[in-house]
Amino acid sequence: MTELLRFGVSLPEKLLKEFDLYISQRKYSNRSEAIRDLIRDILVKREWFENEKEVIGAIIIVYDHHKRELVNKLISIQHDFGDLILSSQHIHINHNNCLEIIAVKGLSEKVRTLADSLKAIKGVKHATLSMSTTGMDLV
Amino acid sequence: MTELLRFGVSLPEKLLKEFDLYISQRKYSNRSEAIRDLIRDILVKREWFENEKEVIGAIIIVYDHHKRELVNKLISIQHDFGDLILSSQHIHINHNNCLEIIAVKGLSEKVRTLADSLKAIKGVKHATLSMSTTGMDLV
Amino acid sequence: MTELLRFGVSLPEKLLKEFDLYISQRKYSNRSEAIRDLIRDILVKREWFENEKEVIGAIIIVYDHHKRELVNKLISIQHDFGDLILSSQHIHINHNNCLEIIAVKGLSEKVRTLADSLKAIKGVKHATLSMSTTGMDLV
Amino acid sequence: MTELLRFGVSLPEKLLKEFDLYISQRKYSNRSEAIRDLIRDILVKREWFENEKEVIGAIIIVYDHHKRELVNKLISIQHDFGDLILSSQHIHINHNNCLEIIAVKGLSEKVRTLADSLKAIKGVKHATLSMSTTGMDLV
Repeated sequence: MTELLRFGVSLPEKLLKEFDLYISQRKYSNRSEAIRDLIRDILVKREWFENEKEVIGAIIIVYDHHKRELVNKLISIQHDFGDLILSSQHIHINHNNCLEIIAVKGLSEKVRTLADSLKAIKGVKHATLSMSTTGMDLV
Repeated sequence: MTELLRFGVSLPEKLLKEFDLYISQRKYSNRSEAIRDLIRDILVKREWFENEKEVIGAIIIVYDHHKRELVNKLISIQHDFGDLILSSQHIHINHNNCLEIIAVKGLSEKVRTLADSLKAIKGVKHATLSMSTTGMDLV
Repeated sequence: MTELLRFGVSLPEKLLKEFDLYISQRKYSNRSEAIRDLIRDILVKREWFENEKEVIGAIIIVYDHHKRELVNKLISIQHDFGDLILSSQHIHINHNNCLEIIAVKGLSEKVRTLADSLKAIKGVKHATLSMSTTGMDLV
Repeated sequence: MTELLRFGVSLPEKLLKEFDLYISQRKYSNRSEAIRDLIRDILVKREWFENEKEVIGAIIIVYDHHKRELVNKLISIQHDFGDLILSSQHIHINHNNCLEIIAVKGLSEKVRTLADSLKAIKGVKHATLSMSTTGMDLV
């Protein structure tokens, strides 16, 4: 079990009022939960800049599946970086466009190279890299 | 078939040299491909700020599956927003942590509300919303 | 005088340890100060998306002062938006390039339009809009 | 004089139409100007991640000048980092709050440390670092 530690935070009255407004808009159940989220966000950002840390995330690409060569290239690159790829999910958006979500895990630098390589393929319309975390340091 | 149009761009010599360096680092096959990507990126960003447009993307959450109540809450919220959810992908990161990638499609504002609701659940360690595109306006 | 209110926050032990590491790297004097900063950051971001709120910030542009027409255009636009501009600061970076920092205050939408107009001038090499706050709601 | 080089870009018709719409909304005078801005933006972002490069920017802080100790601390830190600071601009926002805009130039890492140090001072309500460029590589 994880032990919860407790400490006090002091805030000017007006700042606390604004924070409570934010909490209710975002539907947090209490202040601790909202503050934990703020802290985790800055820690995850830091993880992605430390090159020796293992990170986890997802690469999301949109492309036109009619271009046969493109599909072959996508598969070939994914094989080259096979040790980074956990699984992938494919969605038919409409007649022309596909969305592919590739779950990735590995060293930050390698994951970013894979995302760049997929983005640079002719015919890939959009690519984003979503930076998440293995949660190891966040408990 | 999509028709390709061609137009000329003029750049100072030094700026072009730096751009060509960037292109080779990112492994683009040619300048047009790199410029198309820059243009698509700003257009996709714009889409997400227009409330009446349909967008597509992915919500990625990390959580500890040992917390039974949490899992029930995740499922219940996903049902409430069922019309936004296309599919989801589940990965066991390690003994404690799960990664769930939820593909979403709908009006930008609703998708952001769903992401906020999932993030605010006690026990969800990290949540990101990755903003992609249906590709409709990008051809 | 502003009254300070105090409340308790509970955190898993490991998360607190990581947060304390972050605090010492960033040279915060205590946890409350770091948490106040995290809270203010999200509140300021929110301010800039509420169109009816008055915001404050700075527009920073880099340009080549040798282009005479450019300088005239910069001045003319700044006069058109005169009610938004508080003061400006000019720095000679090197033989060719100038940095101009324009302090701005007004409705978020108007300030963004001014920044876009300056950025779009031929010869302006770079423009950034830095979003700060009047501090009214932050005490 | 800088020589302008010209090259052709090919775009799908629909993407070009959307780009032209963006250009007119942002008030660009022509496509080349808008594309030069997109290219400069990604190059400036890259500059700030290369530690050996000299960058230029501005740190913007908001604080309550009634706190005497705070003002002394601000001055003392600015002296410690004196070689990074080009000039500064001070604005009285309202009865309590001051806005200070500090123009900075130096190695990216040092500039970021200065920004962090100012942000961490108790009483500084908000601090942003605006990343611009000496324009050396952008012509």
